[in-house]
Amino acid sequence: MKLSEICGRLSVEYTGDEIEISGLNALSDADKSEVSFLEKPKYASQLSGTRAAAVFITQEMASKLPESTIALIVEEPYITLAKASAFFAPKRLENSGDAPSIGEASVVEPGAYIAAGAQIGQGCHIMPGVFIGNNVRVGDNTVLYPNVTIYRDCEIGNDCIIHAGTVIGSDGFGFATTKTGEHVKIYQNGNVVIEDDVEIGANTTIDRAVFSSTVIKKGARIDNLVQIGHNCVIGEYSVLVSQVGLAGSSRLGRNVVMGGQSATAGHLEIAPFTTIAARGGVTKSVKAPGLYGGFPLMEHKRWLKLQGLLSRLLKK
Amino acid sequence: MKLSEICGRLSVEYTGDEIEISGLNALSDADKSEVSFLEKPKYASQLSGTRAAAVFITQEMASKLPESTIALIVEEPYITLAKASAFFAPKRLENSGDAPSIGEASVVEPGAYIAAGAQIGQGCHIMPGVFIGNNVRVGDNTVLYPNVTIYRDCEIGNDCIIHAGTVIGSDGFGFATTKTGEHVKIYQNGNVVIEDDVEIGANTTIDRAVFSSTVIKKGARIDNLVQIGHNCVIGEYSVLVSQVGLAGSSRLGRNVVMGGQSATAGHLEIAPFTTIAARGGVTKSVKAPGLYGGFPLMEHKRWLKLQGLLSRLLKK
Amino acid sequence: MKLSEICGRLSVEYTGDEIEISGLNALSDADKSEVSFLEKPKYASQLSGTRAAAVFITQEMASKLPESTIALIVEEPYITLAKASAFFAPKRLENSGDAPSIGEASVVEPGAYIAAGAQIGQGCHIMPGVFIGNNVRVGDNTVLYPNVTIYRDCEIGNDCIIHAGTVIGSDGFGFATTKTGEHVKIYQNGNVVIEDDVEIGANTTIDRAVFSSTVIKKGARIDNLVQIGHNCVIGEYSVLVSQVGLAGSSRLGRNVVMGGQSATAGHLEIAPFTTIAARGGVTKSVKAPGLYGGFPLMEHKRWLKLQGLLSRLLKK
Repeated sequence: MKLSEICGRLSVEYTGDEIEISGLNALSDADKSEVSFLEKPKYASQLSGTRAAAVFITQEMASKLPESTIALIVEEPYITLAKASAFFAPKRLENSGDAPSIGEASVVEPGAYIAAGAQIGQGCHIMPGVFIGNNVRVGDNTVLYPNVTIYRDCEIGNDCIIHAGTVIGSDGFGFATTKTGEHVKIYQNGNVVIEDDVEIGANTTIDRAVFSSTVIKKGARIDNLVQIGHNCVIGEYSVLVSQVGLAGSSRLGRNVVMGGQSATAGHLEIAPFTTIAARGGVTKSVKAPGLYGGFPLMEHKRWLKLQGLLSRLLKK
Repeated sequence: MKLSEICGRLSVEYTGDEIEISGLNALSDADKSEVSFLEKPKYASQLSGTRAAAVFITQEMASKLPESTIALIVEEPYITLAKASAFFAPKRLENSGDAPSIGEASVVEPGAYIAAGAQIGQGCHIMPGVFIGNNVRVGDNTVLYPNVTIYRDCEIGNDCIIHAGTVIGSDGFGFATTKTGEHVKIYQNGNVVIEDDVEIGANTTIDRAVFSSTVIKKGARIDNLVQIGHNCVIGEYSVLVSQVGLAGSSRLGRNVVMGGQSATAGHLEIAPFTTIAARGGVTKSVKAPGLYGGFPLMEHKRWLKLQGLLSRLLKK
Repeated sequence: MKLSEICGRLSVEYTGDEIEISGLNALSDADKSEVSFLEKPKYASQLSGTRAAAVFITQEMASKLPESTIALIVEEPYITLAKASAFFAPKRLENSGDAPSIGEASVVEPGAYIAAGAQIGQGCHIMPGVFIGNNVRVGDNTVLYPNVTIYRDCEIGNDCIIHAGTVIGSDGFGFATTKTGEHVKIYQNGNVVIEDDVEIGANTTIDRAVFSSTVIKKGARIDNLVQIGHNCVIGEYSVLVSQVGLAGSSRLGRNVVMGGQSATAGHLEIAPFTTIAARGGVTKSVKAPGLYGGFPLMEHKRWLKLQGLLSRLLKK
């Protein structure tokens, strides 16, 4: 889509060259065919390094952009981005396009739906009621139990098992809120990538990224009713016990274990080989591996000490 | 159904006039074609104002009913109500009746099931594996992702998006328990009403009301794996983050934000523009807008102060 | 499968008699046609009483086995068991075998899938999108709402109601972890048994047992989005409110009530007629009935006292 068309539809002033724009992206990830935005001053340091073609930005901040990036002056950059995201949303389901390809010895049971452009590897088992969207890629020897939904453009590796009712690639919880309290949807144009040898329980939900990918790395084990927000990255062989909730952009190293009902706030990292006890609430990044628990999070031995202290106080 | 028939099937004595009864309802909401009940003395003050045709009630309380309301004397009013609720339960799925109507430019994908009497507006997209029950009404430009289930008699507005696996209108968690500890189902004969421009995530559950409606108002945003109990009312533009749990009859004002894994006890109100932090447990009504957290709930700054206090105590 | 074949495929030394092995089981439950394992020294006391045909065990522990039980010496018994579990996993879905039998006056709606060998009683209602696996048995007058999934070999009683999207019999969260942190799946070859008059809400998950059965006893009431781990036993008329999470091998007595978002650690018991308040975290067995809450769990009145104490400390 031409930048002039984007700006025209948003009533944003732009009189420069005709540039073809492929999509939207974060400031730090955008390439020269993409448009980005800056809303919060605390991210202003990212402006000088961006390679974005253009950025929705307020008048005050615009001077900090590199010369190679076009400033698109708006009053509310995040709201403008939200509106622009709709222009790049692919169709939910296209019936045209290549027939899906199904590998040798793969079985697709009756009542499964596989959309145009999907590619299923060899030796897979797709059970009744499964939905596989456009252009989804599934590796070899992967099993999808009944009523699993895989949204378009997601990728599933080899030797994966996904249990019944699980949803992969639903929209992340993204919206911009106007001054009067209304919400404008930010279309989630990224996807989910699940690597090889991952097992996922029943009725779990893994949201697609707003840009780029939510990633579940090789060998991870995810239990039932787990929520994984958009743009999370789950490290190799990590273990997420039932009812864990990971807010958007949580990044877990390899072999992280999260106990039942534990959770993270968003935009943080957990060091490899860290264990979060059941119910632990991770409020900021965990930099040293170890055993943590409580809410707000603390070393687990400190949490035990706290319980002992409270117990003694009650006896007084 | 005639009142005499209801009483006959329940072995409740009744020798008065033949009255046609349309259903059951709460004391304060029942009209003169409905039957209600009183179990707990604390609700006795509602007796004098009721317009119910008849009320299941104990001998002791019966004298407090207005003259226009018939006292149906029973030992266990709640158990009797539970048994009566079965008489008014509609059929789960009727194949007879009007063929569903599908508006112009709406697409119903293969493998979706739309029951008799359902009405789908214009420009909707109903994806594979969706179930839409009898008499459901869906507005215009609404999207139902794969494997969504909408139980009978529910209403969905215009411009809504409901993600995969979500269940709207399942039975509320209602039963009366006998003295010997057995449970008698209270049929949930209400519905769910979702207004315009509401987006709901994946594998969320919204229960139908026991009487009248569970209501999700205009512009609300609901994330994945959220539980909304029967008879809740969610205000305009409210935001419920993943794994929130709202017990029955929670009433949220407009622009209430509930953080991840936060929850409410039932039968309470939250003031408009209130924010409940992640994990907050709302144990009674919140009357002043603000930021709250913790369990039991407190002002969030108080919760932070408490964490500081505990931290200092541990250092001693 | 012959024991010699099992050992051959696992590269475990075995030169004894040809014995036919029917499956794997826990030390205390295995019969003389089954193989078991011992990994943790704390369970060594179970060795002397086992009736297992053979046990995967380390050299050090082997001498404690009774003479009638064959010691299969391995370095990592749990990993070996995990590998062996794959040999006994039945096919996910078999199209051969007896056509399913459907009782009189039962209705199977279009879009439901019932696998070979399944037996549905009389007066049942199987709604669209339901999946019923091989050899599942469903009693009389049971209702399965849309998009419910029942995995193979599970049993559902009479007069049950299972709401939309619920998954019964998905694999328990079982795996053995190697020294280098990789996970080997333990195939879950047990099932789920649901007795009569049980109602289960929407999008709940109940995992099948690794060996034997996960059991939901007569008259239990289970709400939406509840997680029940493998090998749990839920007592008669117990009540599990929404978002409860029960870790594997939790055993609840009759009429146990678990409030919303409460949870258990695994391998523990809760006495009959116990109530766990909302959010309570059951960290060890509850032996005396009563009202408990908090995390770690305590008597609820103690929890209230603790909140009062903290409140007073904050005022100082």
